[in-house]
Amino acid sequence: MLFDGHLMPATGLANDSFLRALMRQPTPRTPVWLMRQAGRYLPEYVATRRKAGSFLGLAKTPDYATEVTLQPLDRYDLDAAILFSDILTVPDAMGLGLRFVEGEGPQFERPVRDEADVAKLRVPSRDSLRYVYDATAQIRRALVRADGLQRVPLIGFSGSPWTLACYMIEGQSSRDFQTIKTMMYRRPDLLERLLDVTTDAVIDYLTAQIEAGAQAVMLFDTWGGALAHDAYRRWSLAHMARIVRALPREQAGERVPNIIFTKGGGAWIADIARTGVDAIGLDWTTDPAVARAAVGHCCALQGNLDPSALFGTDEAIRAEAAKVLTAFDSPRTPGHVFNLGHGISQFTPPDAVTTLVEAVHAFGRGPGFPSSAPA
Amino acid sequence: MLFDGHLMPATGLANDSFLRALMRQPTPRTPVWLMRQAGRYLPEYVATRRKAGSFLGLAKTPDYATEVTLQPLDRYDLDAAILFSDILTVPDAMGLGLRFVEGEGPQFERPVRDEADVAKLRVPSRDSLRYVYDATAQIRRALVRADGLQRVPLIGFSGSPWTLACYMIEGQSSRDFQTIKTMMYRRPDLLERLLDVTTDAVIDYLTAQIEAGAQAVMLFDTWGGALAHDAYRRWSLAHMARIVRALPREQAGERVPNIIFTKGGGAWIADIARTGVDAIGLDWTTDPAVARAAVGHCCALQGNLDPSALFGTDEAIRAEAAKVLTAFDSPRTPGHVFNLGHGISQFTPPDAVTTLVEAVHAFGRGPGFPSSAPA
Repeated sequence: MLFDGHLMPATGLANDSFLRALMRQPTPRTPVWLMRQAGRYLPEYVATRRKAGSFLGLAKTPDYATEVTLQPLDRYDLDAAILFSDILTVPDAMGLGLRFVEGEGPQFERPVRDEADVAKLRVPSRDSLRYVYDATAQIRRALVRADGLQRVPLIGFSGSPWTLACYMIEGQSSRDFQTIKTMMYRRPDLLERLLDVTTDAVIDYLTAQIEAGAQAVMLFDTWGGALAHDAYRRWSLAHMARIVRALPREQAGERVPNIIFTKGGGAWIADIARTGVDAIGLDWTTDPAVARAAVGHCCALQGNLDPSALFGTDEAIRAEAAKVLTAFDSPRTPGHVFNLGHGISQFTPPDAVTTLVEAVHAFGRGPGFPSSAPA
Repeated sequence: MLFDGHLMPATGLANDSFLRALMRQPTPRTPVWLMRQAGRYLPEYVATRRKAGSFLGLAKTPDYATEVTLQPLDRYDLDAAILFSDILTVPDAMGLGLRFVEGEGPQFERPVRDEADVAKLRVPSRDSLRYVYDATAQIRRALVRADGLQRVPLIGFSGSPWTLACYMIEGQSSRDFQTIKTMMYRRPDLLERLLDVTTDAVIDYLTAQIEAGAQAVMLFDTWGGALAHDAYRRWSLAHMARIVRALPREQAGERVPNIIFTKGGGAWIADIARTGVDAIGLDWTTDPAVARAAVGHCCALQGNLDPSALFGTDEAIRAEAAKVLTAFDSPRTPGHVFNLGHGISQFTPPDAVTTLVEAVHAFGRGPGFPSSAPA
């Protein structure tokens, strides 16, 4: 089912629509995957996590990470797999001591608070993150079907330097980011140094994921939206731009597209596009038509259904999905990957995802659809 | 110090720059007030709250509400007072049972969950909110100086219908608003009914505040930014637009300007402007130059310093304030009220506010400033 595009994406893929959409090439239907698609809303995930003993046990054991990565693909007709991991693996490997406290989210035992803490930060060795690269390679192998074709491409990812810095300095999630912002307004030099080394670490981390088999990579800038508009450019976007420039564009002759997702960053996507990134993730507050007008066709767009729409009736889910697809003029206008505007809620009924994925794939495939399109 | 503008705002004011700026009239310096300026960062507020026994004791006793409303004016050279109250007074008066649990924020004992709960909702009697109107009148009187002039204008306010609905249905603050969004996608008719009656209630509430002495009114749409772009228009903005249309434009011959503040609503301000509102509050993620380009000069803009800048050095505070003022071209271009982009943090050092207010007032008053400007 491969097209003869001039930029041929990864070969050997049974379904390459996700990579094609990231490269703004036509696809017969809109590709869809969901942020946090391997997660607690799936009973099979909960069962594997129970076997693993903990979230970190799951993420740090390639067998388990592979198992849960594939679970949503077995249940739904998704067009991409995403490495099961956590955004905080890099600072954990820097020695900050990641732990998950039930009901409170991730925490670092040794947050970065002063000059001495910052001075100690180093790019982690590849060995310290070997479990991630091993999982990546193992998932790649597990995605290959009996006929030798890979079911769907595998996405690698990292937290953005700013988002990692938020956790590294605050020690946990925060409502107003008082500690890191105090550093920003009192010791910008320290924050700059922390971000520089973290950016170097993310570059090495994503490069290693690509070498291990990730076919696209995504930066999750979960907390970029907490910054003032000008501060965002300096403290988050500039570092993501350096990552985009530094990442290998190809691996084994295949283009490896990249995606930046800044939650709450809808007003800044023209600036994000200028980094040269291949695709921009949109949260659900952003009007796709406005986003498209802002960036033109220089990059693909990914998103952006409100995850809460999955609590609706099947009829509401279909209607909301159709609104998103219509706003992107997808799949008629190339360059759209359907996704939620944020990670799927743990309380989502699994059947709602079936309804959604089917609705996305069926959209625009009425009688008017070119009959030559591969099914 | 009154100008001879064609739209004369409230008379008898020693300082009317806030009202003038809301009406896009020139002011000699940029007026400034701070959301939540009467609050926990002030030791005198903490002392009064201790006397009152609780937050609700404070808000429901006009003597105390008056006392804390005036505290920030005695400490800082602010250009407006804002009624001390809570955004959740209206649903409380609807019988939902507001309570404050230490460390957890506001909660309702009887949240609205089903058709029967919605059917019971009524516009509260004015008597049930008498304490708010009494406080408003008492604060107005307390603002009058020995020479008979009122120090600064008094702002009244309410939560937006959508924001009130979030608390009414969730029962408390929420990270993802699952309950209200489930209603939105399953029983939109119920949510519509709840919002309709809540909108009627807010209209009556703000009208009564204006009759009691509020000289400007503001809608706090704290949770509008949790909505998808199109959902925002239907579920939040449409109801705020009805309020703007219904409110009295004048009281005792004086124009009473209104302000809409949707946190996270920076991308939607052209739509907000179309409601006919006099001013739009901006959070700190919004670039003032972009906002001005979006709305032109059809309304004033209020904002938008990151509240965390107040954790910075005095030098950083002055620099950040100057950046905001420069971006608004304020006070040279009329129609800007300086504020934070969100409520002031309880951890703010009080002296930082002194630095900020002085910096705002001093800005643009160099040798080039017209010598005829009143000091």
